[in-house]
Parts: sequence; structure tokens; C-alpha cells
Amino acid sequence: MPGVLEPREDGRPHVVIIGGGFAGLYAARNLGDPRIRVTVVDRRNHHLFQPMLYQVATAALSAGDIASPIRSVLSRHRNTEVILAEVVAVHPDRRTLDLGDGSSIEYDYLICAPGARHSYFGKDQWEYLAPGLKNLEDALEVRRRVLLAFERAERERDPVRRQGYLTFVVVGGGPTGVEMAGALAELRRYALRKDFRHIDSREAVVMLLEGGTRLLTSYPPSLSDRTKDVLRRLGVEVRLETLVTDIQPGYVVAAGWTIPTHTVIWAAGNVASPLLKTLGAPLDRQGRVLVEPDCSVPGHPEILVLGDAAAYHARDGHRGGGVSPEGLLPGTAPVAIQMGEYAARTIKNDLRGRPRTGFQFKEGRSGPSGDGGSGGSEPAGNRHPFQYWNKGQLAVIGRGRAVADIGRLHFSGFVAWLIWIFVHIFFLIGFRNRVIVLFEWAYSYFTFKRGARLIQGEVHAPVPTEPIQTP
Amino acid sequence: MPGVLEPREDGRPHVVIIGGGFAGLYAARNLGDPRIRVTVVDRRNHHLFQPMLYQVATAALSAGDIASPIRSVLSRHRNTEVILAEVVAVHPDRRTLDLGDGSSIEYDYLICAPGARHSYFGKDQWEYLAPGLKNLEDALEVRRRVLLAFERAERERDPVRRQGYLTFVVVGGGPTGVEMAGALAELRRYALRKDFRHIDSREAVVMLLEGGTRLLTSYPPSLSDRTKDVLRRLGVEVRLETLVTDIQPGYVVAAGWTIPTHTVIWAAGNVASPLLKTLGAPLDRQGRVLVEPDCSVPGHPEILVLGDAAAYHARDGHRGGGVSPEGLLPGTAPVAIQMGEYAARTIKNDLRGRPRTGFQFKEGRSGPSGDGGSGGSEPAGNRHPFQYWNKGQLAVIGRGRAVADIGRLHFSGFVAWLIWIFVHIFFLIGFRNRVIVLFEWAYSYFTFKRGARLIQGEVHAPVPTEPIQTP
Repeated sequence: MPGVLEPREDGRPHVVIIGGGFAGLYAARNLGDPRIRVTVVDRRNHHLFQPMLYQVATAALSAGDIASPIRSVLSRHRNTEVILAEVVAVHPDRRTLDLGDGSSIEYDYLICAPGARHSYFGKDQWEYLAPGLKNLEDALEVRRRVLLAFERAERERDPVRRQGYLTFVVVGGGPTGVEMAGALAELRRYALRKDFRHIDSREAVVMLLEGGTRLLTSYPPSLSDRTKDVLRRLGVEVRLETLVTDIQPGYVVAAGWTIPTHTVIWAAGNVASPLLKTLGAPLDRQGRVLVEPDCSVPGHPEILVLGDAAAYHARDGHRGGGVSPEGLLPGTAPVAIQMGEYAARTIKNDLRGRPRTGFQFKEGRSGPSGDGGSGGSEPAGNRHPFQYWNKGQLAVIGRGRAVADIGRLHFSGFVAWLIWIFVHIFFLIGFRNRVIVLFEWAYSYFTFKRGARLIQGEVHAPVPTEPIQTP
Repeated sequence: MPGVLEPREDGRPHVVIIGGGFAGLYAARNLGDPRIRVTVVDRRNHHLFQPMLYQVATAALSAGDIASPIRSVLSRHRNTEVILAEVVAVHPDRRTLDLGDGSSIEYDYLICAPGARHSYFGKDQWEYLAPGLKNLEDALEVRRRVLLAFERAERERDPVRRQGYLTFVVVGGGPTGVEMAGALAELRRYALRKDFRHIDSREAVVMLLEGGTRLLTSYPPSLSDRTKDVLRRLGVEVRLETLVTDIQPGYVVAAGWTIPTHTVIWAAGNVASPLLKTLGAPLDRQGRVLVEPDCSVPGHPEILVLGDAAAYHARDGHRGGGVSPEGLLPGTAPVAIQMGEYAARTIKNDLRGRPRTGFQFKEGRSGPSGDGGSGGSEPAGNRHPFQYWNKGQLAVIGRGRAVADIGRLHFSGFVAWLIWIFVHIFFLIGFRNRVIVLFEWAYSYFTFKRGARLIQGEVHAPVPTEPIQTP
């Protein structure tokens, strides 16, 4: 198979979707039309409900609870094929892409939603010492380190070193950092309380370090303050305007201050997939494509870039709801879902002969090429720009505690938490996952226990403490 | 800490338990007495419900569903401490044991239940090509290989190579092999049926190779025949008297016959933990300790060896119920559980001054040393030998299909399956696991789906097919 260009199987237009995240999956679900051929390429076999990864990392949920096989989610769409492979390059000029196994795929439309990874702002050596939370392996690794730190503290007789094991540092005060810090605070306070004989897990220190002046910068300031108060009440040491300047085995340096710790979790920055560089499109500082108002790549209306791979300038209708200081839509699941739906609608409109102005469907193929009498002078895609409908944003801080920013309503507490649970379960793909997650939550809410406290992988693999091998 | 001998903390007798499997955990649970100090040492943080590992391997259950943290199971026993560490040696003369971190522990009693691994009969190079099922990592690796084989078949255009990906070979016709083959047959027939576009998962071949003349040799012959029939009706190719003579990347040689396959699962042999060699006790061919009738090591009544680490000669009362042709009790969970309870009872009796004859509690300590007026001429431990109460044995073959050997009753089918479910859920440790497993089973029974079809770990890590690096 390597080296072979996959032949067009029939005369149908071929939409290739890179990435089975929220954007890719919602695009595929909305392209379930037998007249279109759809191929989803992902290097993992599962869609991941990323907003709940921190629950896997803190042992509240199992890996399987927040992931569904992409094949299974799309099995009823008979026009859709799923390929487990890594895309290594896109050739926009030839309308092909290369897979890691050496084969190529031709496309008529490309939906590019490969997601993002952590960014360490040039300090890549921090990655091993301070893993982030993007995929299941990340979450299981964080869980392993957190649980092992308690195990080592239990065996450590030296009080200073013991405190190092019992200090957990979360870097970054965005939603992931806030949720992670809150979950860690509850883990040590409730779930582990009775399990140790030589330590009191409640004495563990959870620190949340944020370089800016407030937490959750995409929320209104009143909710940022409220979040800080709730975290402090949970026993989290919140430090604002505290930039991390160094991470070493056994300690972190932040704002000139050395914190002994063996467990650091990174939630401070993102960088988009390096695959985007092969598109030849203009990228922003985080490596995202500066897309047109219809999410397309400038000069390539057949390539749509979605989700946190896109730097999309918020328009008039997009107020609040996490729009960044630079005026960009946030890399959240709701934006990705709406972009996926929009991309599917756009492609279907094209194929029905209702073209975006300036768009040329591939020559010699059935499709909207040249029809539609509108003048060619308008910039591409201006006719039907993507419109983000901001339904609000929610972040959970702990058991029965959350903050909500919904339209003009800013509130926090138990009701916000209930809304969060409802929204998240509703969006969890797959009936089974919904029921299991609901049960796990009910279980941990009423019993204060954590159901998934397994250390998977090598127990004796190193944690970044003792003599270290940088990977 | 390394190098330090842990001091005796108080005057209480110290029982150290190696292994948090069924034997070790049931011993610990029955030693919950404040006058005794108990320490459980395991190199994993979780107890594993090993009989259901094949369900994790075939994506029916998540890893977390069949495992509970040992700490959590024992958290209410305030006299019990849990240490996450590997035991590297026992020194029966000094009554100490060495941990992997360089520290040592003194004991008064040692319960040694470290379990077993697979045996490849001297062909250790087969391990990488044909993993077995002993721990969660094994099961997740088998799951990864099985699901990846379908993914590769979907992408493979050459029909011969495709068939190699779609052939699954299970080696060994004991309970694990039978259950694994049945579960694979159902996975390809139901759960994956609608997910692929280029292959029909139902065309996958599942082979069960057994060297002997029948499956489930510990069961009555009528049930062996019945099992073979049910497996064949599920589409499993059962081959008896078929010894595997070679395993290579891409094929297996059995009875002079070459089977192209990329997925081999080993369920053919066990060898006990190498730790047992440090006891200086007589071992059998599988490395198990030839224990006394009270499960003790000859000459060391304070060391009790339990579970599949013990070669225990079945006595008059132990008829049927999986007793091996050599007359040994099987390495099953029920035997381990009863041994664990027996060991706890024995130790408590000793400490109450009702000694086993010939047993000398350590000098200078409170305890039964020298008291109890019974004569010293009887061989050690003959007074209260371990008595296995055989409640029967059950093996599940598939959805609604199982075989049961309970006393004089030998039967198969739906009722046997219901009994199996009831018994297994009943023994699953922890309320949460029980409910989740029940739900997952109900879900997969009524929908034919599998809930845990995640490929964890590196998707692009090699499976043993293409150019191979032997580890």
C-alpha cells in the first residue's frame, strides 16, 4: 500500500477530515449524505471528551468513560470511512495528503482539525517534568504521578522530603488549571483521607500558579474573584502574577521563589499541530491558521481549518464567551462543534450549487464550478461567514462548586455545578458513557470516594524526582 | 530510608503479607485485629479481579472496572499498613525481607502469595509475540493488538495478508483460553460488525489450539465436549492435540502446520514468582512451593505460602473441582480466597495459644511459644490442615453460554451463565465495581456493543508482524 495514491472510488466528491475531535466529528456527522464520500483520518481510534480529562487525571473517571471509538460513533454513516493513521503533510496544490504509512489520499474538500498540544514557550525540557493534559496517556501519567507521590510520602521518614512529595503545583489559571487544582484539593481532602498510616493526605499542598492578574481571564472579573475565593476555601494556594521561570527535578522556581515539589502539572499554554505548517497558510504565534471568515485557508476555499487549529477573529456577534484579548474565538468544545457543523453546511451548499463567492470547485467534476451568477470581486467567503453562538461558559471548581458565565448571568455555586453536569453529560457522546459517568459522579458525590484510583503502567518507572534522565 | 531495617514499632506480632491478590487480601481482611500488626506489600497499588481480565482484553470492560486500590479495600483496618514496593528476597533464617528500594522489614509471620506469570516452556522469546493475561498491562496490550489488527486489515488490499491480520490464535484450552476465544468470536461477530467499510469483521478467524485431547481438563469430559461444541457454534476453530512448536512474526507453527497470524494470545502455562526461590523450600516443576498440609513451608511454620504460589496436594475431601492430574489444587480464586482465610485463622489460633504442633513462636516475644501441652512428635501442622471446600467451577464461553461443574451437577447454557454472572459480581471487591460491571454487561448483552474499545498507549507502536525488534 505504501506509495500508492488511493484511487477515486467513484464520481462522488471526497471530503477528507483530519482529526476526530469535536470539530471533525461534528463535521462528519453532518456530512452523512450518500452523494458525498467522507473519510475521517485520526491517529487515535477514539474521540476524546477533552474537557473532562482532569477527572481521569484525578482518578474520578476511567479512561474509557470519556472516550468513544470514532468508528463506532460514525458506524451508521455508510458514506463515511475511518482511517487510523497519522497525517504527515498536506499538499494544497495537488489536493492530496500524505499518511505516515507512505500512502496518499486525494481530496476535493479538506477539513483540517488536528488540535493542539501544550506549549512550554521554548522550554521543551519542562515537558517531562510538568506534563499537561491533552490526551488519555497524559491523564493517566498525571494520575500515576499524583498517586505515586502519596505512596512515596507514606514511605518517607524525612519531613522535608515528605513535604516535597506532598506538594502539587498546577501551572496556569485557565479552566484546565482551575479544575485540576480544585480536583486535587478534593482528592487529598476526601478520597485518600483514610488510606494512609504515616501521613495525613489532607496536609498535602495544592498550589495554583498564574502569571496574570486573575484566574479564568475569559470570564468576567467578578467570577475570577469568586473562583479564587472558592479555591482558597478548598485549601488551594492561589498565587497570581507568579510566573514560572524554571522547573527542575524536585522543585519549581516561580517569581524568584523555590517550591520543593515532585509533581507539576502544566496547563499554561497551547501550540497548534505542526501539520498546519504544511498548508502554506499564514499562522499566528501559537501556530494556528489565520482563517477567512468562512474558516477557509486564504486562497484555498476547499480547505477549512477548525477548532483550536484556527485563529478565528471574533466578529460583532461574538461578545464575551471566552473571546481572547486579541479578539480570537477560544479553543473550546462549543466553538469546535459549531465550526464542524458550519463546515459541513458550507460544503453541502457548495455542492448544491450555492457557492461561496470566489470559490472554484475542482474543474472537470460535477459541482458548483462557475455557476452562481454573483460577481467575483467580493473576497472569498464573505457571504456566509461563520457565526459563533455563545451559549456561555462554565468551569467546575469542586464538589457542588462551579462558575457560570451565561449571557448577562454571572453566577457560581451549586446551581452552576448542576448546569455544568447536565451540559457535560449531554454532550458526552454515546449513551453508555453518559450513564457510567453519571453513576461515577453520583458515587463520588455521595461517598467522597474516587472510583478509578489505579496506577497503570510501570509503578517503578521514574517520576521526575531522583536522578533524572531527560527524554 | 534505603538500607534501614524498619524497627518494630511496638510489641505486637507483625504479620507481613506479600501480594494483594485474592489470597493476600482475604488473609489481611481476616487479620483485622488491633493486637496484630499487619503489613501488605504489593508492587501494584491495586487488587485485580484476574478471572475477568479477558473481558478487559476484549474491550467489554475498562481496566478500572476490575481493579480496586488495595489501600482503599483495607482502609478500615487500622492495624493494617499497605506498602507499594517490590519484595526482592526473603530471609527465613533472619525473619526479614528485602524491598526493591533497599529497605528491609522484619516479620513474625509471613504470608507469601506473590502469584504467577506465564510460562513459555523455555521459549521466552515467544513472550513478545504471544502475550498472556496476568495483569492490566497485559490485557490492555492484547486489546491494543486485537483492535489494531482489525484496523490494519481494513487498510490492507492484499487478501492473503489481510487474512493474516484477521486471524487470532489463542494457545491453551484451559478456562482463560476458552473464555478468551469465545469473547473474541463474539467481538468480531457483533461489536465490530458495522464499523468497517472494506472488511467484514465476521470473516475473522478465531483459533483455539490445545495440546491435549480435550478442553478444560479440570472439568468432567462431558462438559469439555459441550464446550467444544459451543465454541464451534460460535465459529471458533478448535484444534485439539495441536502443540505449538514455533511462533514467529506473522505466523505460528502448530502440529507441523503453519498458520499466518499477527495476533497470538498465550494461555498455556504458568510459572510461580521467582521470589519463592529465596525461601529455600522445595519447589515443583512450575516453581511452586511444596507446602505442608497447613500451607506452611517445611521447617518454617511461620511462613505460609498461598494461592498459585503453592503446590498443595489435594486431600481426601478435595474431589473434582479442578484438582490437577497430579492431585494438586488448582490456582484459582476460590482456592486462594479459602487459603487466605485459613492462614489468618491459623495465625490467630497460634497467637491465642492454640498452636499447631511443632510450631515455635519467636523466643522472647509474647505468643504461643512452648505453651500448649501437646507432644512434639507429630509432624508440623497435621492437626489443622487446610481443607478446600469445592463449591464448583464455572467457565463462560459467550453471551448466555457457560459451563458449570457444581458437585454432582454438570450443566451448560443460560442458567450456567447466570450463575457465573452472579458469582463473579458477588466476588468483585467494592460496591462501585459491582454496579458498573453489571451495567456494562447489561449494556453489551442488550446492544451487542463493547464499551471499552479504546486503543491505549502508542497506536503506532509495533505489533509483532513487520520487521521485528525482539525486546
